[in-house]
This record gives sequence, C-alpha cells and structure tokens, in this order.
Amino acid sequence: MKASIISIGTEITTGEVADTNASYLAAQLSLLGLEVECLAAVPDRIDSLTEAFDHARRRADVVLATGGLGPTDDDLTREAIAQVLGEQMFVAPDLERELRGIFAAMGRDMPASNIKQATLILSAQAIPNPRGTAPGWWVEKDGKIIVAMPGPPVEMRRMWEAEIMPRLQGRAGHESVLVRTVKCFGLSEAEAGERAAPVFGMGNPVLGIYAKPDGIHLRLIARAAEERKAAALIAEAEGRLRGALGDHIWGVDAETIESVVGGMLTAGHLTLATMESCTGGLLASTITDVPGSSAYFKGGFVSYSNEMKVSLGVDARVIGEHGAVSGPVAEAMAEAARRQLGADIGLSVTGVAGPDSLEGKPPGLAHIGIADVTGARSVRGRYPARRGDVKRLAVTHALFLLRQKLAPC
Amino acid sequence: MKASIISIGTEITTGEVADTNASYLAAQLSLLGLEVECLAAVPDRIDSLTEAFDHARRRADVVLATGGLGPTDDDLTREAIAQVLGEQMFVAPDLERELRGIFAAMGRDMPASNIKQATLILSAQAIPNPRGTAPGWWVEKDGKIIVAMPGPPVEMRRMWEAEIMPRLQGRAGHESVLVRTVKCFGLSEAEAGERAAPVFGMGNPVLGIYAKPDGIHLRLIARAAEERKAAALIAEAEGRLRGALGDHIWGVDAETIESVVGGMLTAGHLTLATMESCTGGLLASTITDVPGSSAYFKGGFVSYSNEMKVSLGVDARVIGEHGAVSGPVAEAMAEAARRQLGADIGLSVTGVAGPDSLEGKPPGLAHIGIADVTGARSVRGRYPARRGDVKRLAVTHALFLLRQKLAPC
Repeated sequence: MKASIISIGTEITTGEVADTNASYLAAQLSLLGLEVECLAAVPDRIDSLTEAFDHARRRADVVLATGGLGPTDDDLTREAIAQVLGEQMFVAPDLERELRGIFAAMGRDMPASNIKQATLILSAQAIPNPRGTAPGWWVEKDGKIIVAMPGPPVEMRRMWEAEIMPRLQGRAGHESVLVRTVKCFGLSEAEAGERAAPVFGMGNPVLGIYAKPDGIHLRLIARAAEERKAAALIAEAEGRLRGALGDHIWGVDAETIESVVGGMLTAGHLTLATMESCTGGLLASTITDVPGSSAYFKGGFVSYSNEMKVSLGVDARVIGEHGAVSGPVAEAMAEAARRQLGADIGLSVTGVAGPDSLEGKPPGLAHIGIADVTGARSVRGRYPARRGDVKRLAVTHALFLLRQKLAPC
Repeated sequence: MKASIISIGTEITTGEVADTNASYLAAQLSLLGLEVECLAAVPDRIDSLTEAFDHARRRADVVLATGGLGPTDDDLTREAIAQVLGEQMFVAPDLERELRGIFAAMGRDMPASNIKQATLILSAQAIPNPRGTAPGWWVEKDGKIIVAMPGPPVEMRRMWEAEIMPRLQGRAGHESVLVRTVKCFGLSEAEAGERAAPVFGMGNPVLGIYAKPDGIHLRLIARAAEERKAAALIAEAEGRLRGALGDHIWGVDAETIESVVGGMLTAGHLTLATMESCTGGLLASTITDVPGSSAYFKGGFVSYSNEMKVSLGVDARVIGEHGAVSGPVAEAMAEAARRQLGADIGLSVTGVAGPDSLEGKPPGLAHIGIADVTGARSVRGRYPARRGDVKRLAVTHALFLLRQKLAPC
C-alpha cells in the first residue's frame, strides 16, 4: 500500500514552525510496511487544501493529514475533504453533546464557532481525541482512506498510536514489526555507538542511536514473518546491548527516569525530599510529573539564595569554605531537605545554569547530593552550557543517581 | 510570485532524517515576499520526481529543489528536470574541467559516475558550489524558474545566500513583509477568533490564530510595496487586536510570560517568592528559565503535603475549614512564601493536577494566590484535565496574574 502525508498550516509554509508531525508519521508508516509517496505541507487556504487532497488521493491508497481541525475560520481541513469527495458536512448530535460536555466540565459556555468540531460527512467516522476538543476523521471512499488528525503533536501522536495505527495495521499485511527502545545515561552518543557496534552488524534488528534530553536512546526495529521470530531477534539484540552498556541503562520503551524512580520508591515504601538551586524547581517538577507521586514525594525547596540554604540548615561555614557550588554544600542540602521534611531520602542539585559564571565556576557545572539515614554523598556533573540543557541534564543526572542508589545491583 | 519547495530523498520519506532545508527556504522565501504554495518531500524515484516537478511547476512561478545532485544511481534530480522539460542532458566541458580539478587537488582520480555532476541542459545554467562537488542548476523556461540545490544544509545554505537569493530578489520586486505575533491568555482559541473577526476581514495583514501552551497566539503577516506601508498595516491591525482582546494580551513576538514578568520585577526593584503544590516546582522552574532571574527570585517551596504548608506558616485551621485546594489557602501560601523569604511579592498555586480528584475536587481546578505588603488575594482557574497541561496552564495563569498586578493599568 502507498501512503501520502499532508501537513496543514500557513505557519509551516512560511517557515515559522518546523513540522515534526510529517517525519514522525513517515517513520511510523514505514514501520507498518507502507511506502510513503510524498510529504506535503500546504497553507491554510481552501484551494491549496483541495488541490493537495486531490493530488495525494490520486497517487496513494492512504492519505494522512494533520492540522486544520481547530475552531477558527482558517481551519479548513474538514471543508476541503468534503469538497474533494463531493459531500456535505453536517453536525453529528453525539459529537455535539460530547463537545458541549468538555466545555461544561470546565464551567464555560461553548463558543459558537466550536460547533465545526462536531461535524462529519457521510463517509467519515469520528476518531476520539481525549487530549483536545477536535475529533479526527477516518474517511473511506472509492477504495481510498483519508485520515484527518489534529496538528498539536501530543494530540496527534496519541490518536495515531491508539486509533489510527491499529486500524492501518489490519489493512497493511502480515509482516511483524517490533520496536524496542533501550535508554541510558552517562555516555555520549559516540561512546554508546562504539559499544553497540556488534548490534549494528546484525542488520535485523536495525539499530538507531539518538541523543535525547534524558540521555541516549538505542532503538531496535526487527522484522519477521512471525511475531515470535521478531521477538526473538529483539531479545538477542537487547541482551547484547545490556552486556555492552551495563548499568548506564535505566529504562526501556515509554519509561521515563522519573517513572522508574517513582516505581522504586513506591515498592520500597520510601519517601523523598529535594533541595535545588540551579535547576530552579525543575527537579521537583519532574518528580511530580508522575501521577501518584504525592505518595512518596514530601516536597522540595528551591533555594535560590545562600540565605535560604542557611535558614533550612545548610552550615554557612561550609558555603564559605567550599562555595555554594560544591560537593559538601550539595551533601548538606540533601541532608537538610531530608531532615526538614522527615523524608527517607534527600536529593539536591547545586550548580551554574549560565549564561554567566558563578563563584568563578563555569556554566554547565553542577554537584548532586544524595542523603539517607546512613549519611550523604555527592557527585560532580559537567553538561553542555546552554541554560535549558543544563537544567534538564542535571535533573536527569540526579534522578539517575537516585535510581542507582535504589537498585545498587 | 508563488513558490514551491521540493525536498528530495528516500531518507526523508521514510522518516529517518528530518528535513530542515524546506522550513529554512520557506522562511527565506516568505521574507522575500514570495508566497509558498507547497513544501513537498519525495523519494529518490524518477517517477516521483517528475511528478513532483510537473505538479509544482503548474502551481508556482519558482520551484526550489534540494537533494538528488550526488553522483550515484539514486541521485535523479537532473534527470527529472530534463525529462519534465523535454530536454537532453549533456556534459559541459568547463564543468568537467572544474570537477576533474577538484579531484586532482585531492590527489585522486575522479570516479566515472561523478561525470553526472558536470552535466547541463540547454535551459540550465550551472551555479557554483564551493562547499561540494555538485554545482546547482538555475533553469528558466516558459516563464518559470526551477532551481536545483544540493541536499547537505551547509552546501545548500551557502548556495542560497550567495547565488540564489540575490537573483530571486531581483525578480521578486521589492515587496516588504512584516510579521507580528500578539500573545494572550484567558481566552479559548475560538473566543480569541471571534473577538478578532474584524481583523480576519482585513485580508492584509493575514491573521493566524494558534493555541499554544502559554495561551493563544495571534500572528499578523503584512505585505506592501514599502516597509513603511507594511508597518502601518501591522500597526492598524495590532491596534484593533488590542481593542478586541484588551488586557488578555501579555506580550508580543519572542517574549515569554516569564521574561515579561522578570523585566517588570527588575524595573520595579521588586523580589518574588513562590509556594506551589499541584504545579510541583514548575512555577519556580519557569521563573528561573530567565537568565539573571536570581536578581529578583528569592526562592520557592514545593509544598506537596499539608504538613509542609503548615510548617511554613499556613494556618492549619484554614486548611481544615476550606480544604488545601481553596482560595484562602492559596492566599495564605502566597503570604507565607513572601514572609519566609523576605520577598516583596508572594505567588502561590494549589490545585488538582490529576488524574485523580482531591478533597472531592476535580482535576484541572486550581487556586492562585498573590500577596504583597498590602494583603493577599486569589483567583480560581479551570483547565483541561491532562496532568501536564494543568501544570503548564496553572503556571502561565499565575504569571499572567503577576503581570496584571505589576501593570495594573
């Protein structure tokens, strides 16, 4: 089967926004064994849209579109599909009820223009969108499939994974494709690549290595006539990766470092408290991104000044002697967080987020402290010196250390 | 003039490589005043390429292609252009001499397949490529322009800037294009669209409305023969938007809500402290995303338990009477943060991040408190109930309130 992708939005054709949906969908379609004929991006104009749908439908069996499902006058995807197929749009009563329910739950009246998001044509089925107000459309006519998904990547990806991919998989044939992602921290992309060299040589699964904000991801894609065989290929390659990367590995697939650590704290009936300076609250925020984290996270301090550190129990002489960005202060912060909130474990970060140096120390330097009833220790981290990166990498490093402490094997 | 962009390469249509050339060129063309009809990416197959060139040439005056100029069998851009225009490719002696010179300078024989890179058609001129072996093509026929550039971004960008852009500038006339983005909070996308309806009607500037994590963005693009006129068009439309959206507007263009607030605190010599529960540290983290924020941000508390709130000075009876997620507790938290850290202003968030309810209150509900020496007040917010969205929207809401307090006009 052949596929074509259409990204809709003037913000893409003016180059203001880089479209990430198209390459995501292209990769996903390739995994399903579909051949992608064309990726097209077009502006929010009805003539451009109808032309794009018409052209794509002539060249491909499946057309995936993203964007243009919002409530405003420049959202024209539904109108274009209706026009190309010669059908009339109508308001579907059950969709209207659902949509009004979303606004009612927020205690607001639904603006009149939102009613567009409750429309269908006869050849279209509505696809649920739990992350937004715009349902998708699954349209079948004349042996061709057209799918319209919302533009915001979180809405689109959820709809693709939960709704569209499974349906297409049923149509696309019988090859089994399995994907496994192994996630690690503390190695550069090149170092991970060198260690993984024997797995590159296997050919099937195919190995891809990607630098991400939470470390290095190694993605395996195996293909076989039967799922059992694909699973065996993945298992063999993953075993080799585990041998080569050892305890740099902290998780797989959809796991996040904060969900992994959260699961360990829950299993061990342990509680956690934080004190952070250069990460500015991102450590606590990341920990609390996990639903249910209130069961183990007692709270945190964003100690953006030395006075605040001292008032919470960090010895002013230690700061005076070593500087605020130092191992001893990181240890004292972890211990103070633990003691202040009566937690089993204290975790701390102190460092230089940049762009300026601090105490003569360069941006990208941080010390991470960890404390429990047996005492405190600290490690030093050096990260690329962009402010946002320093915060994110120091947080990942801190959670990675906590994971090692909780699973010392 | 209308333009169309074609990115050539199977690595793009399989999603292995994200194409950055197209959005770069789209932005450049928009700045030149050209309207971009379509961005297309196609695989390295002759039928796909001829189809893409043929289609683009029918819809646009200028077609920019990147990729497919290498020496191997899957580099087919020249062949496709020749075929679409019905012309024959021939080896150009001066190009061949140059190419052999490049290899000679490296002390190597030229592989036979490289001779492709010394070919032309009668309608094509060669464009120098000092960063690689493949010259570009500038093709003019039947009133249309086709430009073929190499795929590697360093080669393509140099060729664009030094050779292609100046030529197109001469053709495109002198149209000026100005862009202005107005950012607001507290309205849905549809509500903003309804209020902005008169500006939609202006036609020039063109208005686009986008829902973003920090609220609704309204983007104006004006075109005119002179920059002065484009600026006047933008000013008129922005004035209308300001009239229609009032104090929902918090910033323009590259401003973030945290940078706006940071600038106001700095200007007013004011300091800030935070106490937050459902946002889990994201409020403090967002405030500290601004370089130099340590000058006004004294620190923050992530009070993920009632005990922690009480230990910091929130009256336990207020929690008992109203519940932790309530206006009175938000006010007490803001006041406690301020007092604990000796700051001028205290800002707080307490709410239900979800997915579960709390104290019988639904996910997506929050109370935001703000306190200074004159007292405290609070407002209630309701957001769509996805955990990550609740955190981000509550943080934006809190900073939006702080902005209103600092600019009470």
